[in-house]
Amino acid sequence: MAELVRVAVDAMGGDNAPGEVVKGAVEALNESDRLKIFLVGKEQIVKEELSKYTYDTNRLEVVNATEEIEMAEPPVMAIRTKKDSSIVKAMFMVKHKEADAYVSAGSTGATLVGGQVIVGRLKGVERAPLAPLIPTENGVSLLIDCGANVDARPSHLVQFAKMGSVYMEHVCGIPNPKVGIVNIGAEEEKGNALVKETFPLLKNCPEINFIGSVEARDIPLGVADVIVCEAFTGNVILKMYEGVAKTLLKVVKKGLMSNLRAKIGGLLIKPTLKNVLKDYDTEQYGGAPMLGLSGLVVKTHGSAKAVEVKNSILQCVTFTEQNIAEKIQKAISSEA
Amino acid sequence: MAELVRVAVDAMGGDNAPGEVVKGAVEALNESDRLKIFLVGKEQIVKEELSKYTYDTNRLEVVNATEEIEMAEPPVMAIRTKKDSSIVKAMFMVKHKEADAYVSAGSTGATLVGGQVIVGRLKGVERAPLAPLIPTENGVSLLIDCGANVDARPSHLVQFAKMGSVYMEHVCGIPNPKVGIVNIGAEEEKGNALVKETFPLLKNCPEINFIGSVEARDIPLGVADVIVCEAFTGNVILKMYEGVAKTLLKVVKKGLMSNLRAKIGGLLIKPTLKNVLKDYDTEQYGGAPMLGLSGLVVKTHGSAKAVEVKNSILQCVTFTEQNIAEKIQKAISSEA
Repeated sequence: MAELVRVAVDAMGGDNAPGEVVKGAVEALNESDRLKIFLVGKEQIVKEELSKYTYDTNRLEVVNATEEIEMAEPPVMAIRTKKDSSIVKAMFMVKHKEADAYVSAGSTGATLVGGQVIVGRLKGVERAPLAPLIPTENGVSLLIDCGANVDARPSHLVQFAKMGSVYMEHVCGIPNPKVGIVNIGAEEEKGNALVKETFPLLKNCPEINFIGSVEARDIPLGVADVIVCEAFTGNVILKMYEGVAKTLLKVVKKGLMSNLRAKIGGLLIKPTLKNVLKDYDTEQYGGAPMLGLSGLVVKTHGSAKAVEVKNSILQCVTFTEQNIAEKIQKAISSEA
Repeated sequence: MAELVRVAVDAMGGDNAPGEVVKGAVEALNESDRLKIFLVGKEQIVKEELSKYTYDTNRLEVVNATEEIEMAEPPVMAIRTKKDSSIVKAMFMVKHKEADAYVSAGSTGATLVGGQVIVGRLKGVERAPLAPLIPTENGVSLLIDCGANVDARPSHLVQFAKMGSVYMEHVCGIPNPKVGIVNIGAEEEKGNALVKETFPLLKNCPEINFIGSVEARDIPLGVADVIVCEAFTGNVILKMYEGVAKTLLKVVKKGLMSNLRAKIGGLLIKPTLKNVLKDYDTEQYGGAPMLGLSGLVVKTHGSAKAVEVKNSILQCVTFTEQNIAEKIQKAISSEA
C-alpha cells in the first residue's frame, strides 16, 4: 500500500468550528482511504465532537493545541506569540514533514503569514500566491493571486503563471492550460504599468500557453484556465463573483415571492434551479491552495460548512500524490 | 423660458449607429422640451434616418462630419488627425460653448482623450474620471473611476471622492452621500500601497462623508453611494458586474429549458423575472459621465440601443441645469 497523505486540519478555525470542521474531516476520511487526518485544536472539545461519528480511528489523531488565533488579530504578531494555537501547531507539522498538507477556515492573515514564515517557500519562489478555483461556463478557472501579495512585481506574476499551469494540468487534468492576464482591454498596449511590463514576459515564456489579455467580463465565460493577476485585483474579482451572484439570486427569489403566479412558477423551477446553481457554489470546489510552498496550505472560506472542509481535505490527496510542489519547483527553476 | 440644454450627439459612434443613436436622440427630444440636440455625423445618412421620425425640427440640427474614428484606432493619433470626425467635431462644439454636453457610443479611448485635450479639465482638476452608475440592492452607486486614469495617485482619488459626492447629491438627489474606498478588507491597515496612502486623506477630508473601506462583495448591496477606486480596479468591478450577471442568467435560462416542469415554471415566472431584473439592466441608467471637465462628456456602451442613448441625453439636462461642473469646480478649489 502507498503511504497515506497526512493532512493537519485546524479544528478551531472558522465561523462553524469545531462542529462543521470535524464533520467535514470525518466525511473526507470516510470517502478516501488514502488519507490520514490530524485534527489540531482543544483536545477535549474536538474529541467530544468526534464522539458523534463513526470512522477509521487508525487514520485520525487529535493533536492538542490550547490557544486560538482570532479572525481580527494582527497576523504577524499572532503567529509569533501564540505558539500553542491550532494554526501555528498545524503549520509546524507541515514544516517538520509530520504532515503533507494544512487546511484551515480560520484567520486568512495568519494562514498567509504562517505559510510564508513557518512552512516556507520553495527555493526560487519569490512570492506564494493564494489561488482558488472559480466556476465558469466551461468548468473552472484558477484565479492566481487572489489576495496573498498586494503590489506584486512582473516577475512574481510570471511565476504565478507557471505555478497555476502546473496546478491546472496535474490537479485538474487540463493539458496545456491556457493562461490569460487580467486587463482592461484586449490589446497588448492597454493596461496599467504592471500589466504592460508583465505582458511581454508572459508572451516570451516558453513553459506556458499564454493567450494574452482577459477582460474581467469574460472571466465567467471560462476563456482561460489560469487567470493571472495582482492580488488586489484578484481579491476584487473573487469578491465581485460572490457578491453579484448572491445579490442577483436574492433579487430573483424576492421577485418569485411577489405574486401567486410567480410563486407557483418558483416552486416548479426550484429543483432545476438548485441543480444548475450548484456549479456556482464555491463550496463545491474546496478552499484555495497557497502555491509555491514546501508543503500544501489550503485556506477555506471562514464560513465553510462540512462539505467545503471535506472537499478541501480531499484536494490535498491529489495535490500530494501528484507531487505538485516538486513540479512547481521544477517549473520555477527552469528560469533563465 | 429658460435656455435649452444643448447636447452634441456623436451620430456615427457605436455598434448600432446611426440607427439606434438617431432613434434615441429623437426619443429624448420628444420626452424633454428643455433640450436641443445636434446630431454630428455624415449628413446624408443621418438625415435619412431622421426622415423616419416626427419631432420638433426647431430643436434638432444635423452637423456634417465626414470622417469616422474606428473602435480599434489608437485614440491620441485619431483625435489629432481626424478633425472632421463626428467625435472631434462634437467635442469642439462643447469646447467652444456651442453645446453643453457630448454623448457618444463610439471609441472609449477617443472620448477619454478628447475629453481631456479638447474639452479640457476644470482648473485644479488633476484627472478626469469616468463614473458610471451601477445598480445595487438599495438603488444605485457611482463607481469612480472605472477606466479613465490607470495608476492614479492618492490625490486623484481624493478629488474623485469630492466630484462623485457632488454628482450623487445634485444629479441623483442623495443628501450627504456616503463615500467608500474599495479595499480587500475592512480594517484601516489593510490594502495596497495606494489605498493605505489614500485612506487617511479621505478620513481627514471635511467635505465628504467618508465611511471607510468597502469590500468588493458588498458593492452590490449598495453600502456606499460613491465607490472610489483606481481605474484598473474600477474597470474590473464594472466588467465583473456585467459578466457574472450575464453568465448567471444564461445558466438559469438554460436550466429552465432542461425539462417540462421547469419550462412551465419558467413561463410563469417570466414577467416577474423581467421586471425585477430591469433594475439590473445597465442601459436603464444611461452612459457614464466623465467628471471634472469644463463641459459634460458622456460615454455610453458601444452596444447601446436607443433607450441607453435617450437616457444618456436626458442625464445631460439634469447635469447642466444643476450646474454640476461649477459645483465640482467649487468642491475641488476648496482644497487646502
